[in-house]
Amino acid sequence: MARDPKHDILFEPIKIGPKVLRNRFYQVPHCNGAGSDRPGFQAANRSIKAEGGWAGICTEYCSIHPESDDCHRLSARLWDEGDIRNLRAMTDHIHKHGALAGVEMWYGAAHAPCMESRCTSYGPSQFNSEFENLTYCKEADQDDINRLEQMYVDAALRARDAGFDIVYVYGAHSYLPLQFLSPYYNKRTDKYGGSLENRARFWVETLEKVRKAVGNDCAIATRFAVDTLYGDAGVEVEVDGIKFVELADPFVDLWDVNVGDIAEWGEDAGPSRFYRQGHQIPWQQHIKRVSKKPVLGVGRFTDAEKMAEVIRNGHLDIIGAARPSISDPFLPQKINEGRIDDIRVCIGCNVCISRWEIGGPPFICTQNATAGEEYRRGWHPEKFPKKGSDDSILVVGAGPAGGEAARVLMERGYTVHLVDSAEKIGGCVNAIATLPGLGEWGYHRDYRETQLNKLVKKNKDSQIALGRKPMTVDDCLNYGADKIIVATGADWRADGTSGLTHEPIPGVDAGLDWCVTPEQIFEGKKKIGKRVVLLNCDCYFMAPSLAQRLRTAGHDVTIVSGVELARYMHFTLESPNLHRWLHNNHVELIGGAWAARAEKGRVEIYDVLGDGWERQYRGPGKLPRAENKSHRWLEFDTLVLVTGRQSRVALYRGLKARASEWAGKGIKGVYVIGDAWAPKLIADATFDGHRIAREIEEKDPQHPKPYRREVAVWGAPHMPGGKFEIEYQQ
Amino acid sequence: MARDPKHDILFEPIKIGPKVLRNRFYQVPHCNGAGSDRPGFQAANRSIKAEGGWAGICTEYCSIHPESDDCHRLSARLWDEGDIRNLRAMTDHIHKHGALAGVEMWYGAAHAPCMESRCTSYGPSQFNSEFENLTYCKEADQDDINRLEQMYVDAALRARDAGFDIVYVYGAHSYLPLQFLSPYYNKRTDKYGGSLENRARFWVETLEKVRKAVGNDCAIATRFAVDTLYGDAGVEVEVDGIKFVELADPFVDLWDVNVGDIAEWGEDAGPSRFYRQGHQIPWQQHIKRVSKKPVLGVGRFTDAEKMAEVIRNGHLDIIGAARPSISDPFLPQKINEGRIDDIRVCIGCNVCISRWEIGGPPFICTQNATAGEEYRRGWHPEKFPKKGSDDSILVVGAGPAGGEAARVLMERGYTVHLVDSAEKIGGCVNAIATLPGLGEWGYHRDYRETQLNKLVKKNKDSQIALGRKPMTVDDCLNYGADKIIVATGADWRADGTSGLTHEPIPGVDAGLDWCVTPEQIFEGKKKIGKRVVLLNCDCYFMAPSLAQRLRTAGHDVTIVSGVELARYMHFTLESPNLHRWLHNNHVELIGGAWAARAEKGRVEIYDVLGDGWERQYRGPGKLPRAENKSHRWLEFDTLVLVTGRQSRVALYRGLKARASEWAGKGIKGVYVIGDAWAPKLIADATFDGHRIAREIEEKDPQHPKPYRREVAVWGAPHMPGGKFEIEYQQ
Repeated sequence: MARDPKHDILFEPIKIGPKVLRNRFYQVPHCNGAGSDRPGFQAANRSIKAEGGWAGICTEYCSIHPESDDCHRLSARLWDEGDIRNLRAMTDHIHKHGALAGVEMWYGAAHAPCMESRCTSYGPSQFNSEFENLTYCKEADQDDINRLEQMYVDAALRARDAGFDIVYVYGAHSYLPLQFLSPYYNKRTDKYGGSLENRARFWVETLEKVRKAVGNDCAIATRFAVDTLYGDAGVEVEVDGIKFVELADPFVDLWDVNVGDIAEWGEDAGPSRFYRQGHQIPWQQHIKRVSKKPVLGVGRFTDAEKMAEVIRNGHLDIIGAARPSISDPFLPQKINEGRIDDIRVCIGCNVCISRWEIGGPPFICTQNATAGEEYRRGWHPEKFPKKGSDDSILVVGAGPAGGEAARVLMERGYTVHLVDSAEKIGGCVNAIATLPGLGEWGYHRDYRETQLNKLVKKNKDSQIALGRKPMTVDDCLNYGADKIIVATGADWRADGTSGLTHEPIPGVDAGLDWCVTPEQIFEGKKKIGKRVVLLNCDCYFMAPSLAQRLRTAGHDVTIVSGVELARYMHFTLESPNLHRWLHNNHVELIGGAWAARAEKGRVEIYDVLGDGWERQYRGPGKLPRAENKSHRWLEFDTLVLVTGRQSRVALYRGLKARASEWAGKGIKGVYVIGDAWAPKLIADATFDGHRIAREIEEKDPQHPKPYRREVAVWGAPHMPGGKFEIEYQQ
Repeated sequence: MARDPKHDILFEPIKIGPKVLRNRFYQVPHCNGAGSDRPGFQAANRSIKAEGGWAGICTEYCSIHPESDDCHRLSARLWDEGDIRNLRAMTDHIHKHGALAGVEMWYGAAHAPCMESRCTSYGPSQFNSEFENLTYCKEADQDDINRLEQMYVDAALRARDAGFDIVYVYGAHSYLPLQFLSPYYNKRTDKYGGSLENRARFWVETLEKVRKAVGNDCAIATRFAVDTLYGDAGVEVEVDGIKFVELADPFVDLWDVNVGDIAEWGEDAGPSRFYRQGHQIPWQQHIKRVSKKPVLGVGRFTDAEKMAEVIRNGHLDIIGAARPSISDPFLPQKINEGRIDDIRVCIGCNVCISRWEIGGPPFICTQNATAGEEYRRGWHPEKFPKKGSDDSILVVGAGPAGGEAARVLMERGYTVHLVDSAEKIGGCVNAIATLPGLGEWGYHRDYRETQLNKLVKKNKDSQIALGRKPMTVDDCLNYGADKIIVATGADWRADGTSGLTHEPIPGVDAGLDWCVTPEQIFEGKKKIGKRVVLLNCDCYFMAPSLAQRLRTAGHDVTIVSGVELARYMHFTLESPNLHRWLHNNHVELIGGAWAARAEKGRVEIYDVLGDGWERQYRGPGKLPRAENKSHRWLEFDTLVLVTGRQSRVALYRGLKARASEWAGKGIKGVYVIGDAWAPKLIADATFDGHRIAREIEEKDPQHPKPYRREVAVWGAPHMPGGKFEIEYQQ
């Protein structure tokens, strides 16, 4: 297919200082869990995007000095020769595919807790981080400021040596240059504080020095939160924002502009639950009015029409993307080839971000199971090894796991029958996408539905059978498939069993008319009363989403939560606005409490930590603490159970129980994936499906093959030519 | 000096299976942030204890298979040849000093979130982890059980190859073998569930298989939570506990016994705030009644008298220690040499543990600044490089930073004058140790006081000057010292400034009679009224400790907290019992709220997330959200301000302002450390003092020298002889 001429504008090259971007697709800095510590992971995860057509591809935030050590979270680092060597793997591989490599030089001040380096950081004034809460920086004096500026210069020279084409002075997300600019942090009274010119001084001086140091070897970019969203307590775009752009413009080759701060950076990386594509344009659009340089910005742009419009309207010159580039590294190529319906559209769930927020683990993507697996498992997002046998495969369940397994198996050339009792591909996603704000999560289903429908046309022996009677054990045994993959999903518990007590709640039974599970709410057959009590022991979206839905429908909703409500949504950056919603809509939250028993109309709740704080041994059969006297009754009309999930195990167990019959029926193996294996994130269920499809010929396809690891090797020092033996100071 | 004969019993060798422990000091498995991923850190941090006299030294929990991947937290791993190579560095270095090396083979089931490996784990029944909350395991069928048992066998063989002498089957802290044993997790109805014998089957079978596999090459240990503290919902020591010991005893060479679970493992690693030395003895003591094998247990044993008594009384055979061995790696040697007052006694603050709980960063120790720095910085806890010059050094402030700097400088042979206006060494610790439950934190001061008093006797030109008038800039400039170290500490803010708003709270002023800072409470001069409102924006112990103190004194206390109250105490395992205390004592907590302004008798508070959840650009000077309408007044008699801290900067700033005079006065440098540099943990202030004392001759003693890093090296594959290049599946 050919590119739609409307999208030509996206493919015009653009000059940024001494460099040229081949088109308008630009992967802004985003974390992936690789940094400079996992060089293969970093090189492969970034260079796959160069292969997929992106013109500029950046590291995540990259520390310029041990004083800015964000550990426990994982940043890249450009501290020494060892880091240069490791990051060069990334730039080399990006260059092979004709793209430019960028590095985001970062100094966090008090936002960087320095838990590895144990340094004390410097800021414009001494402040306590609102992001970290136990870390303070020192107020920089003039010596300190000189030293800080030199750190950027030295790191820029190392960046150049590592092969980077674009060097950022990173001042978004409340990091150092913005701290100087913003009166929220900067309380100085010297020439670095007070007036806009004074507050801008540190940033402008740093840009000037960096430019002088790297000359024409690198383009100079700066990432700038043009509005911190605090009104006049911080930076406002039409006040200090555009004025700063005017001041700094001569020293900048590329503006990367967004909004917000670090404590609520979901205002930048807006989850689809709250923000649509292009949600930052009302702020970003002001920059091109005053800058003579190219301007780029993010906004979870996934739609080629919207991207072209944003450029055509003069709001931005370049489309910045983090999440859409993770979800589909080949997005530019697909637009270029007119393959719009092959794009794996980012659903805006922010599960990628959650792993950075958790601190440490490699990132994952709900849509793209290969994200982060390029190096470790050798998975290319668009290329699949040819099938390793002529086995035919029955996949029972077309949800995230089964759908992805069938897709990848068919991509590999296998004959696949995908069977589901639902009328539509998508499994649990079909219901989830009806929850308030989660409509875009339906893209997960849409991608698989589109691809499977295409593939089944090419694979003449394959078929997709929807709306069928649920498959029985006998159905499967007699189906005639060589291998069977069970992907039957999971249910919410009907008896109140939770991770808190591992036991049912006495009296609770979703078979009764006053008790409902999420599935029963989706089904819509049970009447929900006016006063709803929602028992929650899950840390993610189901309980708050149902609370939103029921509250919007006019119910009075009280959530009794045994765990921190929506704790995981802190990691996905959905938490602050979710809590604002619940607050504004008068959803009552009783936290740290659980249910002892329930009966029609009332539930007995207690404070989980309401027992005695002094523990002593009192002999067998006796609890070691004082009795919990916090029990009280709470009245309701309907009790909603978001207490825990359980795999739908009947089919897989039934098949295993009859393993002795498999050989006689020509069955070589039966496997279980996704929620049917164990309830998990949609991202991990999708991964399960993808993985088993790639490893179906292995000896034990049920369990993942070992993956390639990147850790320190005893005997191989980090510093080239350095020592590794233990040596005590003498 | 010679050993006290009362302590001889601690130095008797003891046989454990095919091996002999040279004495009764045993470092049980504990985390340090090294695992198998930082082999030099691991080797040095463990072997320093072998040098210090410990007889057995273990890794932290060590994963036996990618299905038990605890990432984000950092465990050791014994998955492959690469791990064997890395862990061999540890065993080799331990053996050099004549100690035995142990490894704790670990499988976590649902408690291991597998965020790196993306595996699905197996457990006795499917359950949702109460520790992780979004992870579920699959209920193991017989095939799975066989596979799990074989994982232990295979890992044990790798452990033997890595040079380990002691191989654990780890069943404490709610991990897999205990999950099978405990009805809390095990709901099976087959031969692995139901009766005690059935529930014990998995564990016993695994022990038997491991023993058979390693033969006489290794001793077999098992770590067992003999009471899970749930009464009959879990394991009770005098019911299933001792019965299990009887069943498994033939297959075990060494019992390592404790109590509790993983969700509240502070019941095992009891913080001194709640638990005294030997607090687990009431449970542990039952084991020796039924076992024929050596029994060890922990209980933060730091006192040689108590240790000898525990063995003499037949409660334990071997003293297990984690925290005391971190705080003083030379504890056995010091007892052996009769140097009891040289022991750096663990204060039980659990800051070491906090880093594992946070996930990722290397551990630190409040008492022992060299913990974790053995490899990275080459710091030996008991040996110091000789002084590098004849410079005399003035240290202003004898708190954690200044006291430690003076100690280490004197150890190095420098002439030091340590000056403080207080009558006692210790700085802020003197006040902190008066807070409820924090008395043992005073050991931090005691150690430095004892050592400094000894050192000053040896260093005839050195002196300690306490109770002096506060040093002025002129005093320091004219003192005659070559170098000046400013360690003047920090204050709590008097105007309500916090990390939440970075601005004072209108109306708040600790100069008024109804407003008090923590320092003013310690001072005791201001009258505290009946109704106290405590404004908290700090995440650690000060606010809840003051609440305890004031509540105990009869005040009504309401905490208004803008941040999660005592969030850091979740990491130190103090949180659950602290919250029980606050609950039982009717301290009211208003969370997620902050103060807009205050006046005598009342404070206006608001919900931090009480503004609108929909954001839009409304132009300059306007907030992008709907107005926060949650403001309301709260009445009080006294308002306590735990809002934020600030460095006492006057002296350092004053000295820097007169830098031009330094040369004329013979001053070569002025430095700032500890809270005066930026407010920080006591551990980090102590580190600052230690570090500058070791680096005082460097060109820039103010800033730490680079340290040795251990990360993956591009080109050096983890698997010996493996590949490192990017390779996509074909």
